[in-house]
Amino acid sequence: MEPVLFYGIPHGCSFGSIVALEWLGQPYRLSRIDMLASPAPYGRVNASRETPTLLLEDGETLSESFAILQHIAARDLDRKLGFPQGTRAHDRLNRTLAYLHTSFHSAFAPAWIAYKLAEGDPAKAVLRDIAHDKAAKGYAHLEALLAGRDWLDGGDGRTVADAYLVGIARWGEDLSLFELAREYPRVHAHLQKLEADPAVIFAHAIEDGLPATTSGRFLGHVSLEELVPRLAA
Amino acid sequence: MEPVLFYGIPHGCSFGSIVALEWLGQPYRLSRIDMLASPAPYGRVNASRETPTLLLEDGETLSESFAILQHIAARDLDRKLGFPQGTRAHDRLNRTLAYLHTSFHSAFAPAWIAYKLAEGDPAKAVLRDIAHDKAAKGYAHLEALLAGRDWLDGGDGRTVADAYLVGIARWGEDLSLFELAREYPRVHAHLQKLEADPAVIFAHAIEDGLPATTSGRFLGHVSLEELVPRLAA
Repeated sequence: MEPVLFYGIPHGCSFGSIVALEWLGQPYRLSRIDMLASPAPYGRVNASRETPTLLLEDGETLSESFAILQHIAARDLDRKLGFPQGTRAHDRLNRTLAYLHTSFHSAFAPAWIAYKLAEGDPAKAVLRDIAHDKAAKGYAHLEALLAGRDWLDGGDGRTVADAYLVGIARWGEDLSLFELAREYPRVHAHLQKLEADPAVIFAHAIEDGLPATTSGRFLGHVSLEELVPRLAA
Repeated sequence: MEPVLFYGIPHGCSFGSIVALEWLGQPYRLSRIDMLASPAPYGRVNASRETPTLLLEDGETLSESFAILQHIAARDLDRKLGFPQGTRAHDRLNRTLAYLHTSFHSAFAPAWIAYKLAEGDPAKAVLRDIAHDKAAKGYAHLEALLAGRDWLDGGDGRTVADAYLVGIARWGEDLSLFELAREYPRVHAHLQKLEADPAVIFAHAIEDGLPATTSGRFLGHVSLEELVPRLAA
């Protein structure tokens, strides 16, 4: 069977891997994991119970968005979603992805912890403040990067870094920490451009459980239960 | 001039890049950045003022440990510090590095924030508790990974993942959050093995400002002031 991406809902960072699979244009399937329910068999797929995870043709699994996105890009370097190892373009993409995957992604973590605390818990405001400070630095960094660029990575076309960005940069508004249009207009405009992309429209529909039109080669959903027997020992 | 690594003190994650450069065995230099002083010209090297940053032969800079470590590995794949793009070994190393760079590294962030707060600040305990919970999951994950393995990445030899690990896994004890020998004996034993490596002994001596004996091709320190004119526009 073709590769299967286990993606998490709601609003997880799996979003970027769905977009990248659409852009790649090779056959793939999806398997939907409700992260709030965290079904027990998913522990067989990913011991940390995190999404996304990519199930490969031979039953091996690959976790971590960074590794999945670079794997997708390497499946067809002619698509230029990523670049050949040993080139400056490859190094730069690693740098951009590492920045997003680490500093920017983790900036929101205290606010996600706060989100789950009871109303009135004194830690809530402390944690939101920390997240706001860190994420503000992240948005400011991205705002500066995007000056005079058409794509986040600075090359001629979209890369997996844009796919990943569109899935996580929305968290600033999801968590009511920022108004991107007013505070970071270039980031906002870049996200708007990506939101108009058929692959991004598709990924939203998938996340929302709505009818979704692939512009790639999506072959349908498959359930966790059907996949467990395929996992490598 | 050969590549120059800007490394941060005290006890930064640059440590792993120094170890990897020693293991690579190609000529390189180091430039020491006191992260507490954060000298103004360093903003020209790295706009976020983070270390490490690698200055390349042509004056371009590369930031983010992940990107630097994979760049070092790709300079000589025969050394097997990393693996060819498109292979499972490459994917697995990306996954391991992403895990360390993201989940594990960021687990300590709340405790570093707490470290800088005044004694008696009520946020201090909250933040240390969050860091302890997250880092405990990280150490437990690494403890499980290391079962029956000689090296973190699961292959036949050391990789840049081991170099990176030895620089950041020490933070649990630096921050007095864990006793690794008692709580995570496999992690402790793996770190002890790495501590006996000449490259790790060298990196400690460099960090501590003591006489350091290279087992690679370290050609000496160079100051930030000398390097600024070499930066690409």
